[in-house]
Amino acid sequence: MHSNPYNDGLDRNPANYQPLTPLTFLERAASVFPNHTAIVHGALRYSYATFYARSRQLASALAKEGIGRGDTVSAMLANTPAMLECHYGVPMCGAVLHSINTRLDAAIIAFQLDHAMSRVVIADREFMPLMQEALALATVKPLLIQYDDPEFSAPATPVEALDYNAFVAGGDPEFAWLMPEDEWDAISINYTSGTTGDPKGVVSHHRGAYLLAQGNALTTSMQKHAVYLWTLPMFHCNGWCFPWTLSAIAGTHVCLRQVRAEPIWEALAEERVTHLCGAPIVMSLMISAPEAVKRDLDPTVQFFTAAAPPPEKLLADMKTAGFEVTHLYGLTETYGPAVVNDWHQAWSDLPPEEQAILKSRQGVRYLPLEGLDVLDPDTMSPVLRDGKTLGEVMFRGNVVMKGYFRNKAATDKAFVGGWFHSGDLGVVHPDGYIQLKDRSKDIIISGGENISSIEVEEVLYRHPAVSVAAVVAMPHEKWGETPCAFIEPAEGQPVDDAVLRAWCREHLAPYKVPGRFVFMPIPRTSTGKIQKFLMREQARELVG
Amino acid sequence: MHSNPYNDGLDRNPANYQPLTPLTFLERAASVFPNHTAIVHGALRYSYATFYARSRQLASALAKEGIGRGDTVSAMLANTPAMLECHYGVPMCGAVLHSINTRLDAAIIAFQLDHAMSRVVIADREFMPLMQEALALATVKPLLIQYDDPEFSAPATPVEALDYNAFVAGGDPEFAWLMPEDEWDAISINYTSGTTGDPKGVVSHHRGAYLLAQGNALTTSMQKHAVYLWTLPMFHCNGWCFPWTLSAIAGTHVCLRQVRAEPIWEALAEERVTHLCGAPIVMSLMISAPEAVKRDLDPTVQFFTAAAPPPEKLLADMKTAGFEVTHLYGLTETYGPAVVNDWHQAWSDLPPEEQAILKSRQGVRYLPLEGLDVLDPDTMSPVLRDGKTLGEVMFRGNVVMKGYFRNKAATDKAFVGGWFHSGDLGVVHPDGYIQLKDRSKDIIISGGENISSIEVEEVLYRHPAVSVAAVVAMPHEKWGETPCAFIEPAEGQPVDDAVLRAWCREHLAPYKVPGRFVFMPIPRTSTGKIQKFLMREQARELVG
Repeated sequence: MHSNPYNDGLDRNPANYQPLTPLTFLERAASVFPNHTAIVHGALRYSYATFYARSRQLASALAKEGIGRGDTVSAMLANTPAMLECHYGVPMCGAVLHSINTRLDAAIIAFQLDHAMSRVVIADREFMPLMQEALALATVKPLLIQYDDPEFSAPATPVEALDYNAFVAGGDPEFAWLMPEDEWDAISINYTSGTTGDPKGVVSHHRGAYLLAQGNALTTSMQKHAVYLWTLPMFHCNGWCFPWTLSAIAGTHVCLRQVRAEPIWEALAEERVTHLCGAPIVMSLMISAPEAVKRDLDPTVQFFTAAAPPPEKLLADMKTAGFEVTHLYGLTETYGPAVVNDWHQAWSDLPPEEQAILKSRQGVRYLPLEGLDVLDPDTMSPVLRDGKTLGEVMFRGNVVMKGYFRNKAATDKAFVGGWFHSGDLGVVHPDGYIQLKDRSKDIIISGGENISSIEVEEVLYRHPAVSVAAVVAMPHEKWGETPCAFIEPAEGQPVDDAVLRAWCREHLAPYKVPGRFVFMPIPRTSTGKIQKFLMREQARELVG
Repeated sequence: MHSNPYNDGLDRNPANYQPLTPLTFLERAASVFPNHTAIVHGALRYSYATFYARSRQLASALAKEGIGRGDTVSAMLANTPAMLECHYGVPMCGAVLHSINTRLDAAIIAFQLDHAMSRVVIADREFMPLMQEALALATVKPLLIQYDDPEFSAPATPVEALDYNAFVAGGDPEFAWLMPEDEWDAISINYTSGTTGDPKGVVSHHRGAYLLAQGNALTTSMQKHAVYLWTLPMFHCNGWCFPWTLSAIAGTHVCLRQVRAEPIWEALAEERVTHLCGAPIVMSLMISAPEAVKRDLDPTVQFFTAAAPPPEKLLADMKTAGFEVTHLYGLTETYGPAVVNDWHQAWSDLPPEEQAILKSRQGVRYLPLEGLDVLDPDTMSPVLRDGKTLGEVMFRGNVVMKGYFRNKAATDKAFVGGWFHSGDLGVVHPDGYIQLKDRSKDIIISGGENISSIEVEEVLYRHPAVSVAAVVAMPHEKWGETPCAFIEPAEGQPVDDAVLRAWCREHLAPYKVPGRFVFMPIPRTSTGKIQKFLMREQARELVG
């Protein structure tokens, strides 16, 4: 083979090669639009000049404490300006941002702090008692910094911790922040909750964060100066990389300490929000608000949802209220959303129920994800594109994690065969759109037949009296397992098991009809995911 | 220094690392929106499925001829579907696309073919006589393929060449096309015309093309399914990477064989064009069209212009006609546009003449360009941000070329000090926006004082009787040099040198007032750049 002349004397050099990092987005926004509002939080407004200066001050202050490349800085914060500053200031001193889910218990937080070898903890005053409990259990002794959010009004109790704003004030606003040495350097670590074993620390790098942040803007057709409302927790996969996306388009972050209907509707109208994200539960919360709280929206607001397919009724209500809903899917291991239900214009002419069915599919790869498929995990060959054959959803590309921190066995297992194994089961429709059919754990095996709990849930969701449905396996003497349905009834819609059983018999094969219907409020995580393991425990006590 | 634990056992692997290449954009668009219209050309309409299949066929047919990694495929084509297919099909077999400016002469084309070691030439039937002349002069003996564009109606003469469509038909539409081995691999080579010495072959890579293509979409706030009209020649810096941008957002290319007012207005209205690019001459052409040809545009169409600052009158006319004009700047060495006059909302409230002055500035870095500055080339230190101190415009980042092909001396010189030296002179305004003040050659030195020809031109452009102005140096017995102004008068606006001299005296320092005013049509290149060297020659014969 002849040599490639296009590789002779045409190497990388500082003029034509720089590591990709989303940190350069903020530098640009602050340089081009210094006076544009970057952050709104209650009465507080930060311009891009201020946001950038404060991020550099945070980086500088951390560097003065000896924090640098490869060190972990933990943040336990609500969706506040401090959390946005951490997304820039921490990597600007070379360190890695470890965001902590604020709903975890002290033991898990202690495990994370130790495993990540945390050197600094920045915690909101509200979470300080929990953090102190965790620190008492942990081996590491990080520098403790408390953020006193002006929007948090509970009375203060004295704590032995540095004050966040004072700490930032000690930093240099002109600090010569560090570019990553390599775009493969870690920018953040996020622990997955994991249903079994210890949490795993998902390591993300600058390259992936840069690419997914841009992918978000392209996927959501985000215009320059878009206004983004923080209904999605930033501790959840770094807020799906939106803290970085907004700088790329010099947009405005509208912070939100608590996900409640009133401040959401107020922000939507007053700040002229254009985009927001959240699980379907956030949509339900907004839609079920009293009419006096709701506001007229003009133009249409873009809502990006994940974690569960949006039910038809909710989609209809959202449309009436002035939202366009797009369904996304991804995992912490894919920087948040890496799959989008990319809508076809022609689908908008279909009847609402058909639209809802199409919208319930997770969809196709994000632009920066090079590969997405549903494979047989044993043979690694793609399943038939028939919308029926189950396989495991797998990802490959530049928005897949570096791996699990200090856990080579889990990393190797996740990447077997050159694909990232999501653990989610799904199908591929003839048009190439994938659809989750179940988490592996959620398959119900009845008389040797696989039943997808999601399929049963979808039927239940279509009944007007059902607000939330969760179906799990329940032991059965004859069939081994049978479905058990937990139902949260819609308000003002009386319902009983006879009605729902008849409905299921009408729409499902007989063996898929739940043996029991349990009516109760469905437990959810802070990010809106239904906590099926709780119901699985409950169902184990029942007999079908 | 302690080692970085975030680099332990977290290496690249096929699941989490893929070379960046815009070729994946087309694969995605064809997979997600197979039936969406990708290309419109007269009566011809190609869907994304067809566009992708034909590109793979072209790649397959080239591979069958033994073309592969590091080979050059030359294309001398108008803005036709074949040219778009070349932007994908050529790199899909691992080869490098060499686009040839269709206005060059045979000797320069022959030089390029030899220097690029061209193995295949794909030429439009219209340019075949010129290409044959060039091939007779060249040493290389490439495979010759003729594209017979259905929109080119002149009678055919027999040629010894393969037919493009037959060649493509011989390829496999399911061809397993080649990803680049490395994202640093070359995707294209474009020769700069160069005012002295041989043309230089600017080598671009897959990484830069991927990043600039996305940067275009973000910079132009391009929505999904945008419709792009090809008024910009694709042979010019690969059409500023827009052949790749459109696939990223599954948009529609509207081809255009000839830049004439009638088909432009027709396409704008009939195809509902959203975006187009071109030099100011394209805007003039559209605006000066008879009223019967013009059409109502709704909503606003985005026009991106480069090569010269858009004059105030033209901006006003464009606004009335339904366009929003954005000023871009870049070089072949920066993949086309790498600088944007990023507009501030508040500027839209200023009087039109102030808006025009602000819009004449080249602006700030594109998102994927990491660095842009005006430096003193001797000391490499930034000039004062005073809008006055001249320096050389320099670039650094991922959208700067690999280097000049087979020309290490020129490559090294261009990258001295870790920045790409553009050769353009400019200033930085206090707000960080750069403005070109002159190409190095266009400085007029009069009595030891530097005169920027652009400054004089700007004053002339503000006079209503001036359609085009070009100012160059003219010998002067006393002062060495003095400005000479070439003027293309506006239609129906009688003007003479006394009027313009008085105008210049009113708006310029006395030593900057041109010694002569010459009235004539201003010669331009095919891409709309004013050919100053022709006027410089003419001015050498004059005496001020």
